[in-house]
Amino acid sequence: MGVPGKLIFAVACLFLADRFYCGEILVFPEDGSHWVNMMVILKQLHSNGHTLTVVRSARSLYIQERSSFYTSITINPSQMEDIGSGLFDALLIRSLELRTMSPLWRFIEQQKDITAILKTFHGVAHQMICTILEDTLLINRLHSAKFDMMLTDPAFPAGVLLANYLHLPLVYNVRWLNAGDAHMAIAPSPPSYVPTYNSLFHDRMGFIERAENLLRYLVIRFQENFVILPIYSNLLARYFPSDFDLLSMQQSADIWLLRVDFAFEFPRPTMPNIIYIGGFQCQPPQPLPADLESFMQSSGEHGVVVMSLGVMVAALPMEITEIIADAFAQIPQKVVWRYMGERPSTLGNNTLLVDWLPQNDLLGHPKTHAFVSHGGTNGIYEAIYHGVPVVGLPLMFDQFDNIHRLETRGAARLVEVATLTSEGFKEALLDILQNPSYRQSIQKLSRLHKDQPISPLNNAIFWIEYVIRNKGAGHLRSQAIGLPWYSYYCMDIFVFFLALAFTIVWTAFTFCRLICFRGSPKKKVE
Amino acid sequence: MGVPGKLIFAVACLFLADRFYCGEILVFPEDGSHWVNMMVILKQLHSNGHTLTVVRSARSLYIQERSSFYTSITINPSQMEDIGSGLFDALLIRSLELRTMSPLWRFIEQQKDITAILKTFHGVAHQMICTILEDTLLINRLHSAKFDMMLTDPAFPAGVLLANYLHLPLVYNVRWLNAGDAHMAIAPSPPSYVPTYNSLFHDRMGFIERAENLLRYLVIRFQENFVILPIYSNLLARYFPSDFDLLSMQQSADIWLLRVDFAFEFPRPTMPNIIYIGGFQCQPPQPLPADLESFMQSSGEHGVVVMSLGVMVAALPMEITEIIADAFAQIPQKVVWRYMGERPSTLGNNTLLVDWLPQNDLLGHPKTHAFVSHGGTNGIYEAIYHGVPVVGLPLMFDQFDNIHRLETRGAARLVEVATLTSEGFKEALLDILQNPSYRQSIQKLSRLHKDQPISPLNNAIFWIEYVIRNKGAGHLRSQAIGLPWYSYYCMDIFVFFLALAFTIVWTAFTFCRLICFRGSPKKKVE
Repeated sequence: MGVPGKLIFAVACLFLADRFYCGEILVFPEDGSHWVNMMVILKQLHSNGHTLTVVRSARSLYIQERSSFYTSITINPSQMEDIGSGLFDALLIRSLELRTMSPLWRFIEQQKDITAILKTFHGVAHQMICTILEDTLLINRLHSAKFDMMLTDPAFPAGVLLANYLHLPLVYNVRWLNAGDAHMAIAPSPPSYVPTYNSLFHDRMGFIERAENLLRYLVIRFQENFVILPIYSNLLARYFPSDFDLLSMQQSADIWLLRVDFAFEFPRPTMPNIIYIGGFQCQPPQPLPADLESFMQSSGEHGVVVMSLGVMVAALPMEITEIIADAFAQIPQKVVWRYMGERPSTLGNNTLLVDWLPQNDLLGHPKTHAFVSHGGTNGIYEAIYHGVPVVGLPLMFDQFDNIHRLETRGAARLVEVATLTSEGFKEALLDILQNPSYRQSIQKLSRLHKDQPISPLNNAIFWIEYVIRNKGAGHLRSQAIGLPWYSYYCMDIFVFFLALAFTIVWTAFTFCRLICFRGSPKKKVE
Repeated sequence: MGVPGKLIFAVACLFLADRFYCGEILVFPEDGSHWVNMMVILKQLHSNGHTLTVVRSARSLYIQERSSFYTSITINPSQMEDIGSGLFDALLIRSLELRTMSPLWRFIEQQKDITAILKTFHGVAHQMICTILEDTLLINRLHSAKFDMMLTDPAFPAGVLLANYLHLPLVYNVRWLNAGDAHMAIAPSPPSYVPTYNSLFHDRMGFIERAENLLRYLVIRFQENFVILPIYSNLLARYFPSDFDLLSMQQSADIWLLRVDFAFEFPRPTMPNIIYIGGFQCQPPQPLPADLESFMQSSGEHGVVVMSLGVMVAALPMEITEIIADAFAQIPQKVVWRYMGERPSTLGNNTLLVDWLPQNDLLGHPKTHAFVSHGGTNGIYEAIYHGVPVVGLPLMFDQFDNIHRLETRGAARLVEVATLTSEGFKEALLDILQNPSYRQSIQKLSRLHKDQPISPLNNAIFWIEYVIRNKGAGHLRSQAIGLPWYSYYCMDIFVFFLALAFTIVWTAFTFCRLICFRGSPKKKVE
């Protein structure tokens, strides 16, 4: 082979080597804040040369139809409940109402609400997947596209069902699944030391706490079996073989990229195919826009407080907003507040209201001294990554648990929104700002979080490409999947042993009686 | 600061940065094959600049007193049973005897043997730790050395006890602990799909297998509680606070570097502080000595079979050796056999006997077509790493389980040594050599094993240095440690709920009866 031949061969090799790991990936995301972090992974996959096809709803709030890094398939179910910001505003009002109730009453009302919310969200997922499976043209198109795998957020199982229908290897970008923390669906979760979703418990529980935790665990299992599974039963009967059940399909994903890090989460059992990627979206701060930078610098030695309640909640009710603005006005720090409602009358000169803020860059700014947050997972990991202590105003879902976890590590203060006072909020804020232990605690978490052999984002990408390279990761999948619960817990064996013991005792007893009858028949007559 | 000042500062910074991660590590290894792989980690730690102090017994078989990469502390207990090759020869003979028994009888005899072996090995560990703790001079020296951590193989707990006594952060290089696979001590191990040590079960078990597996699980727990723990009870009472128990001390290690990889092991629950380093000792082959290389090349297209039974067994009984030599003589391949006994009369010209062989380099040689192995963990991982199919002649301990795991993946054939015939061995050997599926299967395992985001050795070193940097990894330690079993399994809660239910029913019943009595007292009289 001459020099040009060798050159062409070398280029071809390079090209092939590059193409070797490049896959066709079908993506089935969730909307809202879940999409914000899914995008981080998608951008990285795109820049690694993978081709992405995103399935989205026509009524999606955040998932754009057109993008430079993916093509999309838009699904338009004929009947589907709207999950817009209106729903989240209603949930917020209801959540505030619940917070003023007594614990027992709140628990009961909360379970009713959760059941209703689960029905709404799973109803929407059910409509999505029905619309897809009914559309034979679309299904043929998906079949012939020869995707290498599906990447989905399985909080609601439309993506899971589609991947199983198309027989695609499956990777999750996951935090929640069905009715609780994703671990519950796949890893042993003993209620004796694994606090359940929304329990606000530690991993060290007293007797009464463990009893309540067990009850909550059973309620979650009940909701899973009697609220969620029935929603999909007709669909399963129609489109899947009779031995397919939803839980097994959910459990049998190849890789679970779990948005958790043990600098934050309590240690608990896990599985070999769970990869922890908590905080993967965090990165060193980029420079701020000039006006924001000059605002930050104007804070002098006092520094800045950043406040945001996440993408789904535009603003709190006005009376609470006024209380917060009033407290902010009384502190020497400057405040950057993402706020989209009417301007509060108590707003101080030190507070800048913005429609949107570059949260990661602001939290990474050296002038930022505290973060007032609702406790969404994304924001909490950014606070940990940049080592900024948190005043938590949890509103709904997992936000209470998130703030609680930071609080138990001395890195946050939880403030009850429903009973908020200006003094209380100011006291918590000044405590976080002036007591150095909060900053030390969260900076310790930050060091632990960053001390990993591979960055969470690179780890996520590695395992997605691993599934493409190896056409799945079936060898990491537990045989517990599909075992009935009585077999899983060896209940059938215990019953068998009991029956065996009973039979032996009974036989021995009968035998003895027989001997006795034979040996002394006359005695009895006497 | 002038130029020389800056230079000195820069050098000092470099020096400090270099020293920052360098630690003083106390090492408490196990002897034999366990030491072979511990050395791989020690050499890497040494070359990273850490200072190593190795605790060894004066009667150690393999752990040298002098080394270029560690200093040693030699312990010389006054009374200690010898664990020499004589013991292993006796165990081998006994193991062959057991293999000819009926399954039930073998199981019973095996448990008796295991109990005796556990008593011997734990007795030696007990003597070691007693001798150390009694030596106040040595203890003072260890205290004042200010070690950053201990690295130990905790198969027997002398190192664990010493680390706890000295309050040192603790990292395990571990495969077995107490009476079984190390997972059992720390991770949930449901007997419904996690096969117990030596059961030869798959992770897919039928009803009878699950029943037997549960029984084996209970036997292991029994041995742990009633054979092992009593050995150390006096020692604990004398040297440790009253709330210290051996199991909790064993469980509370910071990091478990587990010599397992899921290309080999069945998937099962794990814990966040278990790091899988199976196969960390494997590396690309180095060139062979010239005479061995020319022997390998002389095999032509037929290739070479490599045979080794590990470091602890010099040779099999003569009649079995003759059978193996006879079978080797009948195949067209050349054979390299690590063998230290009398030369068998049936030995063919194609077979080279050697006292020692560079196993990793031989298995990585392109001429090597098969590996005849006893199934020790080190050799099995080398076979996987280099993709060489295995004829397994398991003799004792975990070797049956190891070969069984390869066999279920189509990468090995298990041959029963106790009933070995020349024809049977030759048939298995030729099957492995001629049927390409074995090679394909183990090469698939090899690809999976090597497809990791970080090499197992680098991962091991990372986590050891992590423990030095962060002074432990307490945040990864489960709160299940120290929970009594009835609390762990929520038994106390169930009893509480049952009692509550009973009280309610009984109160209701009593109340009803009271009402009834009051309502119709005359009826009763009538």
